[in-house]
Amino acid sequence: MQFIGITHLGGPWAAALTGSRVLPLAPVTDFWADPQGWQDKAAGLVSAQLPGAEEASDAGPWLERGTVAEVPLVPASARVICVGLNYKAHVAEGSFKDQELPPYPTLFARWTASLSVGGVPVPVPAGEDGLDWEGEVAAYIGRRVESADEATAADSVFGYSTFNDITSRRAQKLTSQWTLGKNGDFSGPLGPLVSRDEVGDLRDGLQVRTLVNGIEAQNGNTRDMIFSVPAIISLISETFTLHPGDIIATGTPEGVGYARTPQWLLQPGDNVQVEIEKLGTLTTPVGGTSLRSRA
Amino acid sequence: MQFIGITHLGGPWAAALTGSRVLPLAPVTDFWADPQGWQDKAAGLVSAQLPGAEEASDAGPWLERGTVAEVPLVPASARVICVGLNYKAHVAEGSFKDQELPPYPTLFARWTASLSVGGVPVPVPAGEDGLDWEGEVAAYIGRRVESADEATAADSVFGYSTFNDITSRRAQKLTSQWTLGKNGDFSGPLGPLVSRDEVGDLRDGLQVRTLVNGIEAQNGNTRDMIFSVPAIISLISETFTLHPGDIIATGTPEGVGYARTPQWLLQPGDNVQVEIEKLGTLTTPVGGTSLRSRA
Repeated sequence: MQFIGITHLGGPWAAALTGSRVLPLAPVTDFWADPQGWQDKAAGLVSAQLPGAEEASDAGPWLERGTVAEVPLVPASARVICVGLNYKAHVAEGSFKDQELPPYPTLFARWTASLSVGGVPVPVPAGEDGLDWEGEVAAYIGRRVESADEATAADSVFGYSTFNDITSRRAQKLTSQWTLGKNGDFSGPLGPLVSRDEVGDLRDGLQVRTLVNGIEAQNGNTRDMIFSVPAIISLISETFTLHPGDIIATGTPEGVGYARTPQWLLQPGDNVQVEIEKLGTLTTPVGGTSLRSRA
Repeated sequence: MQFIGITHLGGPWAAALTGSRVLPLAPVTDFWADPQGWQDKAAGLVSAQLPGAEEASDAGPWLERGTVAEVPLVPASARVICVGLNYKAHVAEGSFKDQELPPYPTLFARWTASLSVGGVPVPVPAGEDGLDWEGEVAAYIGRRVESADEATAADSVFGYSTFNDITSRRAQKLTSQWTLGKNGDFSGPLGPLVSRDEVGDLRDGLQVRTLVNGIEAQNGNTRDMIFSVPAIISLISETFTLHPGDIIATGTPEGVGYARTPQWLLQPGDNVQVEIEKLGTLTTPVGGTSLRSRA
């Protein structure tokens, strides 16, 4: 089952997605109160080909995807916990290449205010030479998780989506902490959420490719992740309690732009695509600084 | 004028606070859509001693503070942008003492899910030897801020509150990024918001004291901040756009516990207070790991 966020009845709603058809289910915060329940309900509606209004509480009829405004399927309070340095070949290409592999996942933060969806242009801030791509898998938490072992943590994942952790490298590297450069306006596009039963275990391997203007820039595989999603969730849950709708951004493989000679960074007019097996393709056009007026 | 967040009519509301009396004004998200407008309206109600219900749209009557449940006066989507290393004497006592003073503010992230209010116990996570205190001033953004100079940035501040950036040091120091240890459950208590007209310029100096079980642990002054609030806001606004309700946590002065010999960390049963001139006193009891079940 696939899900997207849409603007519906004046607010953010969760909707089921089948091909080009969209079925509004519930306000985003209601959806995340019981994501498995909404998945079960949506599966019933889809298999019965029912129009929705009679069955799903408060749900509207099926809509055409092209006619709705999409938004991230994330509650405003969600934490987007990003993992840096989670592929050995990416560690080896970047600023940390002369240091030992960290024994713990390197966790940094995005606020939901930086999130976006496919097709929305990302502006290059005025002080940057361009933007860098980081194609990766996002994992969505489906249950409350406190001090969980890895098996429990694995069961807490509701689904996955494509994600592009688009980075302002100059701002990221101003100090020891990466936060500023990881939260640019519209810089965190997410693709449709695909439920876990359709994806399986990331350790079995999903190919992750990033293309810039059609040219392959990254080609990795999730089986090469240093820290697994259950290990990351388990570690986090020792310090703070995860809630449904929180996201683990699992890290990017090698092939980012700033580490190349010469550097290759995204410029206004460029187009970047993240293609991940079973999760689809996420396309983001790059625009000028003036697009920030929409943030 | 002072403001707090309360649970009212089933959701988070902004309320005016005068002494022990509380006047509900509007849902928190509505308040932050026009904080100056709500301040003006609340000032009129307070000076006229009106009961509120007739004048403030949707506002209830005055309540006694002891009868309401308080919550952070922050929209769920807000960014809590914390500044590390913003007092020279604090830089000199910690892990970064052998490095040059950073030429830019070191910015790290809290999610709103970690925020709390005075009087709420903070649990010590199971893997920590205790928690560390960081008394400081929080500045609240009142207007949209994009690529602002320092004068414009200064005008964007709506008010200030006490804040304790309570830290899980073990988790903070696991890797290069501090995020995990800065987002423990209930670890970010905020005091009542005091509007800017009652506080003035932090560069004129507010004394910041932290007491642990009544013993002074920190005693600094905001005039010693390395980076001013307007400078910090201006820098951030070059990369991402600030919105009303976003918070700048301005950094803590010297005297934290982990840097002492022997270390001094908060244990269950301890009580920590942050006292700041013009902003009041924020008290936080420390409890055991089992309190995490409320998160």
